[in-house]
Amino acid sequence: MAPDMHAQPLVGLMLGDATGIGPEIAVKLLSTALAAGDDAPPARLAVVGDARVLELGMRDAGISVPYQIYPRLDQVAWSADHIPVIDLANLDPASVARGEVSPESGRACGDTLKYMIDLALDGQLDGICFAPLNKAALHSGGWHFTDEHQMFAHLTGHTGFFGEMNVIPEFATFRVTSHVALRAALDMITPERIGLALRLAHATLRDMGHEHPRIGVAALNPHCGENGLFGDEEITTIRPTVETLRAEGIDATGPISSDTIFIKAKRGDFDGVVMMYHDQGQIATKLLGFNKGVTVTAGLKTVFTTPAHGTAFDILGQGKADPGALAHAVRLAAMLAGAASRR
Amino acid sequence: MAPDMHAQPLVGLMLGDATGIGPEIAVKLLSTALAAGDDAPPARLAVVGDARVLELGMRDAGISVPYQIYPRLDQVAWSADHIPVIDLANLDPASVARGEVSPESGRACGDTLKYMIDLALDGQLDGICFAPLNKAALHSGGWHFTDEHQMFAHLTGHTGFFGEMNVIPEFATFRVTSHVALRAALDMITPERIGLALRLAHATLRDMGHEHPRIGVAALNPHCGENGLFGDEEITTIRPTVETLRAEGIDATGPISSDTIFIKAKRGDFDGVVMMYHDQGQIATKLLGFNKGVTVTAGLKTVFTTPAHGTAFDILGQGKADPGALAHAVRLAAMLAGAASRR
Repeated sequence: MAPDMHAQPLVGLMLGDATGIGPEIAVKLLSTALAAGDDAPPARLAVVGDARVLELGMRDAGISVPYQIYPRLDQVAWSADHIPVIDLANLDPASVARGEVSPESGRACGDTLKYMIDLALDGQLDGICFAPLNKAALHSGGWHFTDEHQMFAHLTGHTGFFGEMNVIPEFATFRVTSHVALRAALDMITPERIGLALRLAHATLRDMGHEHPRIGVAALNPHCGENGLFGDEEITTIRPTVETLRAEGIDATGPISSDTIFIKAKRGDFDGVVMMYHDQGQIATKLLGFNKGVTVTAGLKTVFTTPAHGTAFDILGQGKADPGALAHAVRLAAMLAGAASRR
Repeated sequence: MAPDMHAQPLVGLMLGDATGIGPEIAVKLLSTALAAGDDAPPARLAVVGDARVLELGMRDAGISVPYQIYPRLDQVAWSADHIPVIDLANLDPASVARGEVSPESGRACGDTLKYMIDLALDGQLDGICFAPLNKAALHSGGWHFTDEHQMFAHLTGHTGFFGEMNVIPEFATFRVTSHVALRAALDMITPERIGLALRLAHATLRDMGHEHPRIGVAALNPHCGENGLFGDEEITTIRPTVETLRAEGIDATGPISSDTIFIKAKRGDFDGVVMMYHDQGQIATKLLGFNKGVTVTAGLKTVFTTPAHGTAFDILGQGKADPGALAHAVRLAAMLAGAASRR
């Protein structure tokens, strides 16, 4: 770790669902962090979870990472020779079958995230990064939320606008609506929500280092409504909102047909794209290799990041899981948490 | 041309909007057809349009193609040493500015297509392929249709289901709804329309040479509705219709989340994808390079094909326009017309 490491954000790392590849990629990442080369994330990392799951990850990865258990984060002796671990002792991995959905493991994931959120709200963690969850396990383990973003909002006591953000190397996407029926989404596409999504995109992209973020705004209807011939939300709602936000100094462009905007973003025209509904952006980013990207919960008091890929049961325990997306996720958590602390 | 050329479908070629690259790529294609190598399309080709526009294309392409004007197609002496031309003398290209939308050129495009449709309905043409139109020009030239597919349906007297199909090397897409507002599309996603789109996909893919077409059916809501949590059209409408069609022997699979189905189709799981609304498929196929693909009007008495790209005013007259997509379009017209004639 770098000499100025005490100035680095403190990012809590959750090992992910123990039934999947989370522990393996977490160990690979921690090994890189201790090596402190150019690939090391610009953060102090502390594992929060069950030390037995960390040991499992070392066996999966075929790598040994020195670690030390601390009762509290403020007692950690930061050093380049070990990883600090807050051992919650809340999941014995020997008690769950691997490679399949486990309510017990899902419960532990949720419990661990809640513990980390409480640490963050208490000022002891600057950001939270988690290796892949299994959403079905989380749900069957008793954490009944539409998605983990809703869970994080609830646990941080957030009541305003927030949203899932998806980051690939080419650009980031932000959502006016997300995990709702398309029919319900149509009724939620209001000037207020579009404005909130645009402001969130602008602020988050600035935190990611884009001094003057260029943001594309997707249309709702085919061919951008073809001048009102195929729907008028572009004329009545989206364009006026984009113009209002532009007058506030946000570099927003649109509405742009959704079959064109991602081609423009891919070639570098935009740093971020605000999409009206879930599948617009997800069709595009998944085709562009979002599996290697990062999912962020943007707009909450605490920064949350996670790799876009899942628990990958198909390559479990083979030692070949790629920690690349998790490394991006840690880096992004550190960057966003660092920007927040400077405000 | 091949010795058995009289058995080949007779495809009428329209030169496209004279303000764009259509005439140039048409000439390049015709030159290949006369050369009769492996690249030659499996069709007899006749140009229908203005001979002066063909001459313009030769100047743009820097290629001379021998042609002969005939008053009627049934008088053509088919030979490998010239291209037959039905000269409608309906547009003097010297009278329109190039590289911009021209109502006059749009009018001529529509008039030419109508002439070709009448030939097809009279049994004189087996299929119609057209170099790029300009939709705005067509509209301002007096052809007031939502899209050219609606125009073709009207001019062929078609009253049943039909649809735009988009073909890329990896797969073809078919639409339950197309150029309508997304809000209106939601109300049109009925078992009847899904069934019609699936049957059209099945029949058309068979005509394209897929003996047992594998067809993926897209979901409407995010995450395929997450078991009814985010919308129930998958449960109430799409899945039952897919099951009904499977019982009829159509190899349909779905509904599949729209952010996953195109990844599956890209890797070869499906020959065709039936999408619920316009942008689902267009976001995907455009990112996959649909510009080099082909647009087909499927389900009418006459086969219509055209390159997916436009009039490309930006590279006009430079001799570098690529005739590849037009060649695919001619080939597809020949294949579909040939299959229809064998029924």
